[in-house]
Amino acid sequence: MKIDILTVLPELLESPFAHSILKRAKEKNLLEVNVHNLRKWAVNEYGQVDDYQYGGGAGMVMMCEPLVNAIESLSKEKKFDEIIFMTPDGVQFNQKTANQLSLKENLLIICGHYKGIDERIREHFVTKEISVGDYVLSGGELPAAIVVDAIGRLIPGVLNDETSALFDSFQDNLLAPPVYTRPAEFREWKVPDILLSGDPKKIDEWRLEQSVQRTKNRRPDLANDD
Amino acid sequence: MKIDILTVLPELLESPFAHSILKRAKEKNLLEVNVHNLRKWAVNEYGQVDDYQYGGGAGMVMMCEPLVNAIESLSKEKKFDEIIFMTPDGVQFNQKTANQLSLKENLLIICGHYKGIDERIREHFVTKEISVGDYVLSGGELPAAIVVDAIGRLIPGVLNDETSALFDSFQDNLLAPPVYTRPAEFREWKVPDILLSGDPKKIDEWRLEQSVQRTKNRRPDLANDD
Repeated sequence: MKIDILTVLPELLESPFAHSILKRAKEKNLLEVNVHNLRKWAVNEYGQVDDYQYGGGAGMVMMCEPLVNAIESLSKEKKFDEIIFMTPDGVQFNQKTANQLSLKENLLIICGHYKGIDERIREHFVTKEISVGDYVLSGGELPAAIVVDAIGRLIPGVLNDETSALFDSFQDNLLAPPVYTRPAEFREWKVPDILLSGDPKKIDEWRLEQSVQRTKNRRPDLANDD
Repeated sequence: MKIDILTVLPELLESPFAHSILKRAKEKNLLEVNVHNLRKWAVNEYGQVDDYQYGGGAGMVMMCEPLVNAIESLSKEKKFDEIIFMTPDGVQFNQKTANQLSLKENLLIICGHYKGIDERIREHFVTKEISVGDYVLSGGELPAAIVVDAIGRLIPGVLNDETSALFDSFQDNLLAPPVYTRPAEFREWKVPDILLSGDPKKIDEWRLEQSVQRTKNRRPDLANDD
């Protein structure tokens, strides 16, 4: 899988892609992430990629021309399955979307900055608008990193058994059960007896029960998802 | 405001905190972010901070002892208003939470990794469990960066007028209206006439109407939030 990212702040994405799961995915040649500086397609020698918004008001808007030139230039090398724009008014990103996107070959992710991007790009070029949550950030870079991380770890071979995604929260619309490790007693707090019982069947039952209970308490809405 | 972050992958957070809004917030002394390597409080000379989970199963669990030692050691220097654990089964982070947290003095954010942290830490030390969205990531580092970014830009003085947060999505339970910049015609696509009219009252009306319409189409649920 190949993911191209368009941003005005490529340096912000350096460390998230150099460590952890993504590093491993890249080393195994399962995932290739290319971060492109949008200023490469700036409209003038000053590197301009944004301008004041029509109608007035605070905040700069990312211009059509650099974005279109970048999209068209990168599209010559590969056919993108999706051209994704990270925006707080996009469709909420969730594990289902992560699963779907992890099956694609080529993705292009556009990170907005300042006030956003010219609406005409959203109308005519972007195929998917994604929000990572109901909050406003200073740019689309961290959200892009979130999407790459969530997708990357689902690509077969990226995670080993140790960290298998199968038992994570959301994969079956249930939250994960509580986990414990040594010591069995820390200060006056003990690990539940059942986990020390050595009875795998009872432990599985307890974990499922805990997952169901936790989901009911914390996220009753999840049970209604398809 | 001071934010301390506990992580086993401090290097992952280097570039997100070195650029953009957060850089500016730090330079203006409005926000101090300290990233601590949990291994400083490891249980042995091998830097161990995690162990197999009780009851069996894939995935390591972050141990009580290093976390408690870290929390207690950092708490000697300052009184934390909240000890936050980033976890997919936490309460959904949104703009309202960001607003609330931006008024605090000292926050400690714990980033989980591997399978999670020992439940006893969640029960006895953590005061707030936050999820940035319904998806699983390889660790709590990117979510912590998201929270710091969302909060950081709300601290008075961090954003200048140009990028004022007042007109962002969610601040009034409405999505932002579409934005446009030059040229007025790009290829065959034109900017809406009203934005070129020079009539501030009509433009404000149009923007509000677009915001309401967009919220209705994309996020009817937002209108019901308090």
